[in-house]
Amino acid sequence: MSNGVSRRKMLGSMGLAGGVSLLAGCEAALHGASEQKRAGPGEPTKTAAPQARPDAAKGWHYTQLDPTEAAAESYRLMREGGCMYGLFAGIFSLLAKSHGEPFRSFPVHMMKYGEGGVGLWGSLCGTLNGAAAIIGLFEPDKKRRQDLIAEVFAWYERTELPNYSPKQEGEDSLARSIAGSVLCHVSVGKWCEAASEDMGSPNMKERCRRLTADVAAKTVELLNSHLKTSCKFGGLTAEVNVCVSCHGKELRDSLGKMQCGSCHPQLSKKHPALPSKSSPP
Amino acid sequence: MSNGVSRRKMLGSMGLAGGVSLLAGCEAALHGASEQKRAGPGEPTKTAAPQARPDAAKGWHYTQLDPTEAAAESYRLMREGGCMYGLFAGIFSLLAKSHGEPFRSFPVHMMKYGEGGVGLWGSLCGTLNGAAAIIGLFEPDKKRRQDLIAEVFAWYERTELPNYSPKQEGEDSLARSIAGSVLCHVSVGKWCEAASEDMGSPNMKERCRRLTADVAAKTVELLNSHLKTSCKFGGLTAEVNVCVSCHGKELRDSLGKMQCGSCHPQLSKKHPALPSKSSPP
Repeated sequence: MSNGVSRRKMLGSMGLAGGVSLLAGCEAALHGASEQKRAGPGEPTKTAAPQARPDAAKGWHYTQLDPTEAAAESYRLMREGGCMYGLFAGIFSLLAKSHGEPFRSFPVHMMKYGEGGVGLWGSLCGTLNGAAAIIGLFEPDKKRRQDLIAEVFAWYERTELPNYSPKQEGEDSLARSIAGSVLCHVSVGKWCEAASEDMGSPNMKERCRRLTADVAAKTVELLNSHLKTSCKFGGLTAEVNVCVSCHGKELRDSLGKMQCGSCHPQLSKKHPALPSKSSPP
Repeated sequence: MSNGVSRRKMLGSMGLAGGVSLLAGCEAALHGASEQKRAGPGEPTKTAAPQARPDAAKGWHYTQLDPTEAAAESYRLMREGGCMYGLFAGIFSLLAKSHGEPFRSFPVHMMKYGEGGVGLWGSLCGTLNGAAAIIGLFEPDKKRRQDLIAEVFAWYERTELPNYSPKQEGEDSLARSIAGSVLCHVSVGKWCEAASEDMGSPNMKERCRRLTADVAAKTVELLNSHLKTSCKFGGLTAEVNVCVSCHGKELRDSLGKMQCGSCHPQLSKKHPALPSKSSPP
């Protein structure tokens, strides 16, 4: 460190400690508690940017949803605006149906920007960007928000997907793959390889549509669980923990929790053996 | 292709063609025209998901802002909720100051999810996630939205940043670096290397704060320009165009526009020589 602040303290503030995190006592947060004290009805607010956030958290309370319904809605809406929009609008559709405002008036069309890793750049998978946005809306506590995001992201990296199958299309099945990354470019590439499909083929698009349904269901399951009782984040992989234990804690030259192997498949000899390894891209 | 659809047609639909794109006739779009015909006042809407998007684009019109003011607001607000929040709330603060609703009621707090490449995962830089979200809100046309996003993303990848310096802190300067990537993990790592700073140091955090101001100013400049007249996207780098010309157009095994060298620094001998090359991570 160049500034005398203790390594452990700074590491904590950067969220680089890894390991298992526990989520506890989240009910109040998901019922609308905010990081800042909210003004009562009619009271003026006292934030630093009153024009932009007068009562931002007001009314944005998550209530239990049916993961199966969320999957079906997200699957249906994905065709209208891509993966991030499909996930976000699918969940919002159910919330608006139950509660009306403020969900009805939210400009969900904006979420179309996330398609194909944001504007087809191949960066963060739009389903995860949408899931994290939903979590950001309902969980004002920084640590709990990050733990919920980590739970969805880690599940996505490690799970063979897609699992969703639309009833109206019968017993058809698609190839499944483990993304090994939260990045669209890697995730889609892995699936195309596993399925022997071209990028942009109808089956690839159907894979992303079903993946949107899967991530929507997972997000709703997590938020439901988080609403009722404490939730657990299972922690980073053994491989990432080994990488982070040195690059995060000692060398302090790396920020992130993504699986390392998808971009760093070959390591120089000075690196220790890894307990497991992501496949190279 | 496995399905008989022409490669060129499908490639176009995936946005993988690269090269120079032109933005024209954007004024109407930025003044609120939508991909769907909007209902008039009092008319019921006829969308597929009426509960979630009754009049989504209504009222969300961009009007010219001062890039310098946007930079200062985003710089100020970044400390309250991170990079994505800082950028988004900074621009929204100015819009809400000028127009009130619907900007005042937007739950800007949700954008805190994007900090550190979303929940500290190191994926997409939060400033870019925020910029793309702003663009998504105001540009309903898919192609023009993607071109605007590409313009911000390409500028970010190639520009020595940060440039912003807060007046109240005098003539202090920070090291600058070229990110070579839209990913937080790479961008921050490159800066720490250039500045000989530790990850998480106060100077690193100040760099990300100033970067938020820079990207806010760039986003506003682009939207202002896009509002007045046609805008041009300069195109992908020569290196990426070489990669995409084969992996995108022929092999059809890659989705994305990110600079390739940051994750693929070493290529096998079967690859052609590249006209320029990003530095390895």
